[in-house]
Amino acid sequence: MVVSSPINIRYLTGFTGSSGLLIAASSGNALVTDGRYDTAVREAVAAGEMASVNVERVEIRYELTLIDYLRRLQAGRVGVEAGHITVSTLESWKRAAPEIEWVATDGVVERQRLVKDEGEVALFRRAGRALAGVSLRLREWVREGRTEREVARDIDAGIESAGFSQTAFPTIVASGPNSAHPHARPGDRRLRAGDLVVLDFGGVLDGYCVDLTRMAGIGQIGSDAASLVTAVQSAQRAAVSAVRPGISGADVDRAARSVLEGAGLGPAFLHGTGHGLGLEVHEAPRLSRTATGTAETLEVGMVCTIEPGAYVAGLGGVRLEDDVLVTASGCEVLTEAPRDLLVV
Amino acid sequence: MVVSSPINIRYLTGFTGSSGLLIAASSGNALVTDGRYDTAVREAVAAGEMASVNVERVEIRYELTLIDYLRRLQAGRVGVEAGHITVSTLESWKRAAPEIEWVATDGVVERQRLVKDEGEVALFRRAGRALAGVSLRLREWVREGRTEREVARDIDAGIESAGFSQTAFPTIVASGPNSAHPHARPGDRRLRAGDLVVLDFGGVLDGYCVDLTRMAGIGQIGSDAASLVTAVQSAQRAAVSAVRPGISGADVDRAARSVLEGAGLGPAFLHGTGHGLGLEVHEAPRLSRTATGTAETLEVGMVCTIEPGAYVAGLGGVRLEDDVLVTASGCEVLTEAPRDLLVV
Repeated sequence: MVVSSPINIRYLTGFTGSSGLLIAASSGNALVTDGRYDTAVREAVAAGEMASVNVERVEIRYELTLIDYLRRLQAGRVGVEAGHITVSTLESWKRAAPEIEWVATDGVVERQRLVKDEGEVALFRRAGRALAGVSLRLREWVREGRTEREVARDIDAGIESAGFSQTAFPTIVASGPNSAHPHARPGDRRLRAGDLVVLDFGGVLDGYCVDLTRMAGIGQIGSDAASLVTAVQSAQRAAVSAVRPGISGADVDRAARSVLEGAGLGPAFLHGTGHGLGLEVHEAPRLSRTATGTAETLEVGMVCTIEPGAYVAGLGGVRLEDDVLVTASGCEVLTEAPRDLLVV
Repeated sequence: MVVSSPINIRYLTGFTGSSGLLIAASSGNALVTDGRYDTAVREAVAAGEMASVNVERVEIRYELTLIDYLRRLQAGRVGVEAGHITVSTLESWKRAAPEIEWVATDGVVERQRLVKDEGEVALFRRAGRALAGVSLRLREWVREGRTEREVARDIDAGIESAGFSQTAFPTIVASGPNSAHPHARPGDRRLRAGDLVVLDFGGVLDGYCVDLTRMAGIGQIGSDAASLVTAVQSAQRAAVSAVRPGISGADVDRAARSVLEGAGLGPAFLHGTGHGLGLEVHEAPRLSRTATGTAETLEVGMVCTIEPGAYVAGLGGVRLEDDVLVTASGCEVLTEAPRDLLVV
């Protein structure tokens, strides 16, 4: 099998370069990569920092080195990652090696990534605690008169100083009317009295992503905005309580959604309840209305976000998000920190 | 045609969300997107901040909304981006709409992106000047005893305060032995006397990426290291001088490579001479040994990097990089700033 997804290659080997193809074969694994990386990979393998792989160095083009290696292996059937490889790349490999039977496979490595092993769980606990720690510092940064961008920069610096190598995605600070857009980007708007402020941020620790959202209110917020906060808090608690092995992502979503529907906010809940976390900030399992597949049935060792929200044009938006680890008895919240509206 | 590449969708419409499909049809364009984005898109279109598109809101799954829309259009033949769409996505669309003739296309939008229009050129001039300005501040940040990571953070802050919305890629600060790895990441190593330091960084302005590399030396560097610097400076000058309309990327690469080969550094030049810039930090044209295709023949209005390097284990590495705009008479350097070794 040729693994072409960089994240899957990283998962299987520890390789973090931007270009590589992993050939997983019964005779052993080989990493096809180019002159920017081959020395570093050999050193990392020798130092035990990467899984043991042979390194095949690309001199001209990846495809030539790949096909040449597969021919030396006398490979007859070769799997490809249909969910990652593009139509044109596969066509090109087929033309270059018509004697090989190319087999589309789907989610082979992703299924392995779903359930975290002991080392990954330990890393998630550490990362979740560190991100919760960043959330405790929001009070230092969120203030009337500051721009969204200024607050976002402080959060980013806080994420780095908490030990993360980088942010997991561009930090969201969405205030007032902007909070009604689930994916607003921080801009030059200044926080002002009465604003709801969505603060959504994440960090990457040793490649693994954690993700958290808290809410602030600037001064006195209106009673409609306060009800929105209360409803989302209840929805989030309901979804966290629903998490246990064997439940589908759709059923966790329903737990949150039915609370919001009960508050008349069903149409205001514009996205799913959560998503898996790992080397990607969005990975399986999904927790949404359509998440009824087997890959979306929760199992012990999965890690996902629980992040219902409600967005009302003219009023604002609210989202609360934590990361949870599925355990035998339910779940463990990895990002434990107060969920109250931070009033500043 | 269904455009699925987010960058191509952004190029054609200005849409910057994470999920969308653009249907380009003679009757007009439609953007299929979900509840996180549809309101913002309608507002941006109304405000003239995005190209005029109909918005088709996804309620359940993208595929359902897409196929439904194509059926309402009575589309018989539909192009897809073979270089972007995955094998499994195309298979799924074929199963959902077997009556449609799905046609693989290659690089349709990318070819339009190759040559920059007037507005893009103006933006590149502004971005290039701003990034050159950041390079003038390296002297404030690069000092013996500081870690690579500390220097990288200062560069990142400098990029933001120069008006860029974000860095174009993770900033590289590679010192001493680390400089011999073209894609080293900044770590906890402290700069020390005798080090060569590669400083490679970029910024994004209104979506467009610029990219620059300069070299520093900590105190007195050895004569072998100094020769490496001189050779790469000559190679870079030769490649910049070679740039003109009608030349292939391979011939620009040869101009740099032959200088390094003449200095006995051919095998030390581990990558190509450059790459195109635009909404992506790496896009066509490539400037490398194999860049002989028509998409890699330079034309007036293309923008690319010129960044030869030489990497010698045990000694260190050197890279110098500027961004150039191809003009009728040769090229215009967008990132004009001293290329001397910054001795600190």
